[in-house]
Amino acid sequence: MATKIAPLSGFPEWLPTDRLTEQLVLDIVRETFELHGFVNIETRAVEPVERLLGKGGDADKEIYGVSRLAGDADERKDSDLGLHFDLTVPFARYVLENAGKLTFPFRRYQIQKVWRGERPQEGRYREFTQADIDIVGAGELPFHYEAEVPLVIADVFARLPIGPYRIQVNNRKIPEGFYLGIGFGPEQVAGVLRIVDKLDKVGGEAVHAALVEFGATDEQARQCLALARISATDTSFVAAVRALGVEHETLEAGLTELAAVMAAGMEHAPGVLVADLKVARGLDYYTGTVYETQLVGQEEYGSVCSGGRYDSLASDGRNTYPGVGISIGVSRLLGRLVPSGAIASSRPTPTCVLVALNTQEDRAAAASLAAALRGRGVATEVAPSAAKFGKQIRYADRRGIPYVWFPPLEPGAAHSVKDIRSGEQTEADPAAWVPPARDLRPQLIADPQE
Amino acid sequence: MATKIAPLSGFPEWLPTDRLTEQLVLDIVRETFELHGFVNIETRAVEPVERLLGKGGDADKEIYGVSRLAGDADERKDSDLGLHFDLTVPFARYVLENAGKLTFPFRRYQIQKVWRGERPQEGRYREFTQADIDIVGAGELPFHYEAEVPLVIADVFARLPIGPYRIQVNNRKIPEGFYLGIGFGPEQVAGVLRIVDKLDKVGGEAVHAALVEFGATDEQARQCLALARISATDTSFVAAVRALGVEHETLEAGLTELAAVMAAGMEHAPGVLVADLKVARGLDYYTGTVYETQLVGQEEYGSVCSGGRYDSLASDGRNTYPGVGISIGVSRLLGRLVPSGAIASSRPTPTCVLVALNTQEDRAAAASLAAALRGRGVATEVAPSAAKFGKQIRYADRRGIPYVWFPPLEPGAAHSVKDIRSGEQTEADPAAWVPPARDLRPQLIADPQE
Repeated sequence: MATKIAPLSGFPEWLPTDRLTEQLVLDIVRETFELHGFVNIETRAVEPVERLLGKGGDADKEIYGVSRLAGDADERKDSDLGLHFDLTVPFARYVLENAGKLTFPFRRYQIQKVWRGERPQEGRYREFTQADIDIVGAGELPFHYEAEVPLVIADVFARLPIGPYRIQVNNRKIPEGFYLGIGFGPEQVAGVLRIVDKLDKVGGEAVHAALVEFGATDEQARQCLALARISATDTSFVAAVRALGVEHETLEAGLTELAAVMAAGMEHAPGVLVADLKVARGLDYYTGTVYETQLVGQEEYGSVCSGGRYDSLASDGRNTYPGVGISIGVSRLLGRLVPSGAIASSRPTPTCVLVALNTQEDRAAAASLAAALRGRGVATEVAPSAAKFGKQIRYADRRGIPYVWFPPLEPGAAHSVKDIRSGEQTEADPAAWVPPARDLRPQLIADPQE
Repeated sequence: MATKIAPLSGFPEWLPTDRLTEQLVLDIVRETFELHGFVNIETRAVEPVERLLGKGGDADKEIYGVSRLAGDADERKDSDLGLHFDLTVPFARYVLENAGKLTFPFRRYQIQKVWRGERPQEGRYREFTQADIDIVGAGELPFHYEAEVPLVIADVFARLPIGPYRIQVNNRKIPEGFYLGIGFGPEQVAGVLRIVDKLDKVGGEAVHAALVEFGATDEQARQCLALARISATDTSFVAAVRALGVEHETLEAGLTELAAVMAAGMEHAPGVLVADLKVARGLDYYTGTVYETQLVGQEEYGSVCSGGRYDSLASDGRNTYPGVGISIGVSRLLGRLVPSGAIASSRPTPTCVLVALNTQEDRAAAASLAAALRGRGVATEVAPSAAKFGKQIRYADRRGIPYVWFPPLEPGAAHSVKDIRSGEQTEADPAAWVPPARDLRPQLIADPQE
């Protein structure tokens, strides 16, 4: 073909070995979500552009529009579709579209690709995979789900060899109530939050200056910074906030809720949650608990799992749908852990056994033998050709297939199977042999190089 | 939101229950492909439009172009991307791009969405899921893989309750050699094939007339139709073709190969393969065995699994990559079988147990109990609220959760678990109870209504 073959920046693809690692990770994500009672949905890749833009802000910069190349002008205009840039906008539309057929609270997970036309960089792609859970109510959603959601993620990460990580939690009611309590007006809260949110990037002095420029007194700015610097792995943050001497009922509500989230975390996932009062997580969307997740020692890489509570995922004539959700950035997480070798598959192929061929005429018998092995759950293929055994073994070795099966050279003699990693060859009964359990399927392993 | 909520024609979405059915089907497809030694890849959703068009014909009518809404003109022109309309074009590009890092013959499977801007109708969508396997060689690929590929599909379908089906096979060398043998020129072969391919649609008389108009003699047209009408569930088609008295070496090669495919099918998947000499399967692409698959009694629905042998998947300076592949039209298959109820999940949710709450204060203890059950692989969730037990049971019932767990009303008393389908309630040990194996996870079942 004439077209130049080249990777597209921002559209990463894995080689088969690394894709297998990704599959094993996604299997664990899915299994854990399902153990927690989440059902899966998939939504179409496209939404009306109007709906994608509806989420506000400058999201349009990131949207890929989609239109039929050969469609006439009318049809192209009619369709006006774009690729979804997250799984929340399509989920909100799905809930509205199917509300009458769903049971609330609706617990759903969704693992799909999303697309954003951003400038690609490490951990930031134009096509990437997200794994979301959300629990959505019709009209109301009890607070306790805000404590449950990060524990589901802790369960997922406990089964993945991703190294130490922390889920930072905050509650939007805390800064909001606090800012109101120190004299900011309701219309100023979002602006203050936006400035404080830059603390990690620009430092305390710059934030202080920006707050004063925004209209804060020196004392107000000092208090905002003091609040943002509170962090705790237990419920001691409550006393630390109280020590600042600010009172407001919204602040109190936030402290009670965040303490409950931390208490649940300390019981069910000790050491995972950190109450971190500078986490703001977006500016208009969330109304209660918010979550961000950092790999310890790699904080500069950004959050690999984020979300929060929202009071209005969507709204139709009859109902508003509040919810709480969190999203694992699968591509971002693996974009760091797979190339470094921190996480890998125990072998590069599902195949466990290669059946060797003495002659090309043995292929039918080898196929029957392979079928018998598959019937016992052993992934098996037959050698490409009746080449010299050394060549057949090298093929298995290159593919990462651990066992080569040798049918007998003369009828009635014994079969044998060779573990090509150890070189050990033993007699084997075609009607009964199975590999050791650890070799049956590829498994996720940590740090294979270490 | 202001945007009207409406389904998009041609972009089907499942409700959670039917999506679970689709997941269970895809699990079996994947597991069977892996048992046969295929490794998975995923390719990006977009390819350069030039490459998508490169496949020739009027494919451009079907392509969705993709461009950043906010990109400037230069970038939009630069990118010039489209959504893939099958998994073969991206696979060919992937093989060329990564040839040095792959082991040949390369056995890969790929299960992804594809997009075509066609007019939607039953079984034909604008976004749909395909599940492909291909075996690709570097420079050469032995014939025996053409006999292997349909048997993998037979293994998949044997594990799916899809009812009776037939894989129709033909070999492109048979009609080509036959047409040359009765006096058509090499440049006429494709034209004759194209006309004969319409046999099922327009009938024998119309095909005869079209062939004569194309330049065939009456006898040539009669012979073409006689060949196309040969069909057999064994190798008897060879004698039937020979009885037509035509000789050509390409014809002979085709007969030998198709007989070998049928012999392998009769041994490993009796009754599944039909040698059907009218199957043409595209016009320029395939060079050997071709496959189509019909649901028996629903032939008008079209093929649900098709493919064939191609001599040049792709070519770079050094190598040509021949291969053989087949593609399950997952969306088309399920678009027929799920709405009719022919195939379904044994329950609508992964959740096996709902832990009931006596009071809201029992939530922490219930969460620990749920964690213990999950540790034994039992998907469990805690009731949304400490409502009356009748209401908690109704919630489980609406969700399709089979068991409700009742912690004791006073400390030290026994736990009990209720099968809400039978109403049977028994004492249960929180540290040991597991459900019967059939209830542990949802399973695929056939004809639940019957």
